[in-house]
Order: sequence, then C-alpha cells, then structure tokens
Amino acid sequence: MASWVHDDEGSHFSLQNLPYGIFSTEASPARVGVAIGEHVLDLKVLAEGGIFDDLDFDVTALLQPTLNAFAALGRHVQSRVRQRLQDLLKEDTEFGNVLRDNHTLRGRALVRLSSVTMHLPMVIGDYTDFFVGLHHAVTCADILKPGATIEQLCPCFFNLPIAYNGRASSVVVSETPLHRPHGQFPVEATVVSGPCRKLDFEVEFACFVGKGNKMGEPIGVDSAEDHIFGFVLMNDWSARDIQMYEATIMGPFNGKSFCTTVSPWVVPPEALDPFRVAPKKTPRTLPDYLVEKSELSAYDISIRATLEVANGQTYKVADCNTNNVIFSFAQMIAHHTRGGCPLRTGDLIATGTLSGPDRENAGCLLEQTRGGKDPYEMVAENSSTGNVLRTYLEDNDRITFTAQASGAAGNVGFGSCSGMVLPAP
Amino acid sequence: MASWVHDDEGSHFSLQNLPYGIFSTEASPARVGVAIGEHVLDLKVLAEGGIFDDLDFDVTALLQPTLNAFAALGRHVQSRVRQRLQDLLKEDTEFGNVLRDNHTLRGRALVRLSSVTMHLPMVIGDYTDFFVGLHHAVTCADILKPGATIEQLCPCFFNLPIAYNGRASSVVVSETPLHRPHGQFPVEATVVSGPCRKLDFEVEFACFVGKGNKMGEPIGVDSAEDHIFGFVLMNDWSARDIQMYEATIMGPFNGKSFCTTVSPWVVPPEALDPFRVAPKKTPRTLPDYLVEKSELSAYDISIRATLEVANGQTYKVADCNTNNVIFSFAQMIAHHTRGGCPLRTGDLIATGTLSGPDRENAGCLLEQTRGGKDPYEMVAENSSTGNVLRTYLEDNDRITFTAQASGAAGNVGFGSCSGMVLPAP
Repeated sequence: MASWVHDDEGSHFSLQNLPYGIFSTEASPARVGVAIGEHVLDLKVLAEGGIFDDLDFDVTALLQPTLNAFAALGRHVQSRVRQRLQDLLKEDTEFGNVLRDNHTLRGRALVRLSSVTMHLPMVIGDYTDFFVGLHHAVTCADILKPGATIEQLCPCFFNLPIAYNGRASSVVVSETPLHRPHGQFPVEATVVSGPCRKLDFEVEFACFVGKGNKMGEPIGVDSAEDHIFGFVLMNDWSARDIQMYEATIMGPFNGKSFCTTVSPWVVPPEALDPFRVAPKKTPRTLPDYLVEKSELSAYDISIRATLEVANGQTYKVADCNTNNVIFSFAQMIAHHTRGGCPLRTGDLIATGTLSGPDRENAGCLLEQTRGGKDPYEMVAENSSTGNVLRTYLEDNDRITFTAQASGAAGNVGFGSCSGMVLPAP
Repeated sequence: MASWVHDDEGSHFSLQNLPYGIFSTEASPARVGVAIGEHVLDLKVLAEGGIFDDLDFDVTALLQPTLNAFAALGRHVQSRVRQRLQDLLKEDTEFGNVLRDNHTLRGRALVRLSSVTMHLPMVIGDYTDFFVGLHHAVTCADILKPGATIEQLCPCFFNLPIAYNGRASSVVVSETPLHRPHGQFPVEATVVSGPCRKLDFEVEFACFVGKGNKMGEPIGVDSAEDHIFGFVLMNDWSARDIQMYEATIMGPFNGKSFCTTVSPWVVPPEALDPFRVAPKKTPRTLPDYLVEKSELSAYDISIRATLEVANGQTYKVADCNTNNVIFSFAQMIAHHTRGGCPLRTGDLIATGTLSGPDRENAGCLLEQTRGGKDPYEMVAENSSTGNVLRTYLEDNDRITFTAQASGAAGNVGFGSCSGMVLPAP
C-alpha cells in the first residue's frame, strides 16, 4: 500500500503502520498525531475538521493531550479510525478532495516529523514487567548461579508468565536523559553507598492497555488481545549492583526505578498482523486459562541496539527479536488478571529482555559480559573506526533501540527508543 | 482540646485528629470532608462559603472529588487549614459566629458520619510496600527456611528499607469486598490451578505522599516528612500459596495484586506528633542518606485486628504496633528516591506487616500458624461464645483493623480498615 504523503519505501511509518503518538510543536501544545512517512498527521485538526464525525464515537477523545481517552474506546473504534486514515492517505484514494487536494486542511494537518517534540503517549496507571524471554532467563540463571537451570531458581518459570510490578512514575519517553543512580551494593567485603557501577540496558517490547477490566473479573486468554491498544519498544535500564543486593526476596526495586524509556509511537496491533509467529514452546502442559486457540500470538520483529559514545561514534550492541518469548501478550494479560487484578487504560505491560541464544543477540550487558566478567567488544558501525569494549555503561553513553519489520504490506517500524546516561547527580 | 461538635471522649475523631476523607451522601457526589466526632465537616461547603479565602492558597483544591489537589499544596497550606478548622471547632472558639452559631452554614456543613459513603481518598499513582517490620521479617525467615536469619535470606535487610512495587489499581477503600483469587500453586507433587487455599491478611500502616519530587532529585531524609500528606491503616491481603510459588526471583505479583484495602480517613502528621517514638535499632551503621537528625521518627500506635465470621461472631486476631519498624517513613522515602525515582502526589507507601514479638502480636496468619502448620485459636470477643480455630481465611470471613492512640491532646483514631472475603468467582 503506497501513500501520497511519501514515497520512501524504507520509512518506518508506512500506510500499513500508522502508529499513534503525542506530539507538540513550537506553535501548538501536546496533541494526538499519527506518523506517516516523514510527517505527522495531526488528528486534532482532522477531528475538528469533522473527518471522523460519521464514525460513531466521541471525537473529543482525539482532542486530548494523551492517548488514554482514545485507547479507552476499544479496538472496534480504533479499527474504524485506522481504516478511515488509510482510505484518506492511500495513493489512489477515492477521497482525494477531503485531505490530499484540500490544501488548507492538508497544510494544517501535516507537520514535518523533524519539527515536532514527542511526549509520553499515555498516562500510565501501572507498569508491569514480565520475564518471559527464554534465552535471557536460561543465561541469567547460569550467570547468577553457575550450572543452575531457570527452573531450579524459579520452579514456576515454564508454568506461568512471571513478572514484577515496575515503577510507573519513572517511565519516560525516548530522548529523555537519565542520571546514573546512587544506591547501596557490596564491593568486596563491605557495602558501599554511591553511584551505580554496573549500569545496564534491557531490550524489551511492551504494550499499552486499551480497555481495562473490572476488579475480580479476569480477562480470558482468547479475548485478551482486544485489550491491547498498541506496542512500543522499551529500555528497562537496570543498575545491576543495586538490583542484585536489594532483590533477594522482594524483587527489583531501586535497581530499576530510576528510569524506564519507551519509544514514542504506539504501533496498532493490526499493523503487526503480518508478522505473527508462535511463542517458543514451553516444556509444560499449561492450565486452561493460558491455552490459546491461535498459536500465532507472538511477533517476529528484530530489535537492534546500538551504542553512541561521547565523540559520536556508534557501535553495534545486539540484535534481539520479539519472538524469543515463551508466553504471548494475551497469555500475560490472562495471567495478570487471573486473580482479579484490574488493568486500566494506559497500563504498560512489557516482555522482559528479548535475548536470542547467542552473545550478539543478548539483550543486556549482564548477559553479554557474563555478569561483568568478560568485557564485550562492540563493532563500530563506521568501519574506519576501531571497536570498543564495554563491561557496563559509562557516563555519556547513549543506547538506542530501533525495530522495523518488512512484509508484503509495507514496512512497520517503531522509530527509536533512545536515552543517554548522564553522570550521577 | 474539646470541640462543640461532640463530647464523646472515646471518639476516634477528636479535635487533635481532624483526618481528611472523600465522602458522598445520597444527596451529593464525592467531596472532601474532615471527620469530627460522629460527624463529617464538608470542606466543599466551607470553601464555597469563603471560610479559607484569607489563607493564601487555591481553594479550588477543596472542591475536587479526591484529595490529590489539596495534598499537592504541601504541608504549610495543610497546617494553615488544620489550624483554621481547630479554631472554628474548639469548644471556646472566638469565631463562634462563623460556623457554630451560623445555623444555615452549620446545617449544610455538618453531616452525620452514619449517613455517608466513604471513597478511596486519593488517586494513587504508584503503591510501594516496604518490608521494615522487625519481628515479621525474623519470624518469616524462620518459617520459610527453618533456622535461617533474615540476613541470610536478605543480606541487605538491616542496611536499607527493602520494598517491592505493589499494584496501585487493586487498592480499594475499606468495606469493599474481595473475591478469593484464582492462581497456580503446588499441592503435593503437582501444580494446581484453582482458588487460593492460603488466603491471609497483613496488618500494615501507610502514608499518602503530598508533594512529590522530580526524577533524578532524591529527597533528603530530614526533609522527607514534608512530603507526607497523612496516614492510613492498610490490609495487604495475600494469597500465600500463589505468592510462594511465583515470587522466587521477581517478588510478589498475583499473590498480592487481587486486593489491598486502606482505611478511608487520612490522618495528618501533626495529629500523630504526640505519639512519636524511635524506630527499632538496626545492628548496622547506616549510610549518611539514611541518618536522621531526630530519633523520634516512628509512631507508637496499637493496631488491633479482629475476625467476624458468617454468623456475626467476632474474635480477637492480633494486636500489632506501628513501632515495630526498623526504618521510619522518612527513611523509606529517602531510600525510595535515592536513585532518582520520582514520587507523585497520591502515591501510597506502606510499612509491611507490623507484627510484634509474640504470637498474639503476629500481623498475619502465616506467622500465627507457623506457615499453616499450627492452627491459631482466636478468642471470642463475646465471652459466652467459644473460640475459633483458623489456619487461613475462609469464605465470608471479615477482617477489620482498628487503631487509636490516646494522649493528653485527645484521641487520634483511624476508624476501621475492613473487608470481607467472598468465594472465588
């Protein structure tokens, strides 16, 4: 599907994608937009122009400074809006007079991506970080306790999608810098209080919840996808020394709560349909509430992580894939709500680290360096530059994730999820 | 200090207390009130009547259906409002004409407690549950791994206040019933998926955050109390079988996220000043960021837990105390924000279980029954009735916490924190 807005076949933001985001410009405050090629389509301008008036939903949801009201309307409304936008934006549109050839509206509604500032797309009620990456779990078990299997450390690992509650207040949008956190951790025989010495990233994939559920009313696994508004990339920055010291019985806390970065464009589920695959098989028979009718409930999307150092040189860090999971988002949602826990519009649900089986597919430095014991050589993207060694992240390191899937219907990209490490305060 | 509103010396809601809550009546939707004796003083009515106009703050904060806007104004504003209310309500008020003798305003502003419905007082951004109860930790370590000390299970226990992120969406106000949750857990040699068989309560004390902090800007321990809006009782309902199975590496998740109950009246810090005591000493030298100038940073408040069974009989369950903590709320806040984590107005921060050293002071059934191995005999409050044995909670059990501290300035009570267990859905 081609669009009259752009002819760049390599763009992340094809007509098949149409991700939602919250953007502002110098002239206008935060509002809802959809990315298309090198532009943002201003949905507030379209909504005020009456473009959605016949679609039978409350269009004031598109006049808000976050995506929550729109996400709360549910998948059927979002599908109608997506269809309308595709009808208006496709190259051979029958409705050219509405937007393409309406130069006043088009001039107001299409804004260059390079001129906008992106914001956190949703007000996040709760943020949940699962731990369903197969290779990450297997490798980390062996690093934390050499020779141990993940089932020895966590007997339920293959029976249910395990998770911890993350910290919603420290989720930020891509390009927000973060400070190296202070904390307590052992150094040789003593416990030190000071700046983290083992700062790490984690390559993750996450969804935002659209419609929620009432307390005490679990979501069935086969209707769980109806509760997903869309997907983003996520960097679950981790202070390994702080985390390992604090997390022996209560799970991660300060080791994770200093910053979590998400990409700004929320990719709708429909856009990812061409990239469906089955999750990795688990060796256990699952209870009914986790058994899905469809096997194709995960996605095959490669996520690349790169490092940029202070002088601007960039290095390849890792290639991960969203298919390295043993449970789908539908299974995560079914399990999350199994005991009656309510999900709310805007909740953020992430996979955990998406490492593949090999070192160059490891989604965090903990894995790549075998717990900091074996520095990892990152290959320069510019071949004239030498490579760089990293154990953990250094001040002024910038980590960027990008992801793009390509299919017959066009590219579906996530843009980037990026953050730079500033020195400890 | 006596008030002209009531002369019941045993009331939880004396002039020294003046807790804030959100109430509604059949005639009016949710609004801000203050409890005094057997009445609620409607602050919306007072604010609209101009009672606070000279106090130099935005009185629209008192016209909201939650306490967030008022809490965000900070301690100096809340102290001025509290002083104004005490001036108006005290027996020998010089301002009798403003409220006491102004029968129109008085008739509209004073509502009988028995006629109101209480609501969750604040919109909760994040909910954090600490684990700073000394005896709870020591006893649980020995139950989970006989002979083990808490430092063997959790080496950082005395060096920092440990915590996990709780689930904000499942926090409810007292009187909200809860369903026994479904989950997975081992029974003998297999893993079962079904209704929880080890449902428990936990006696806790919690604060709501008033003013927050920016990301990357930790709160110093000696200014941390300025960020506390007020205190409530909390029942951290726990499904022990689900929790023990899931929580080996990531901490509690579904074992806690089905319901957490708080009492409706938020008691201001000033009301509790007469009851200050030092936290329990830790055996470690603390890092500077946790060292407080004042030793009297905890509180001596007894919390009683009772059980009511289906036939209406009540039984004494436990007497706990808020002084059984090794870290104060100020230390919890300083640690929570140490790595830069932002707190937001309305965040809920709890102590963990407040057990004392003996079985009748144990704040949960896990402790009282030694992990379910030794059923606990609960003494009937009506002496003509026989006692009752409990291992874990049964359907239709109601657990109620009450707390009241008495001092020269009067009683300061929390009302009750109560919830009934309904059968699994």
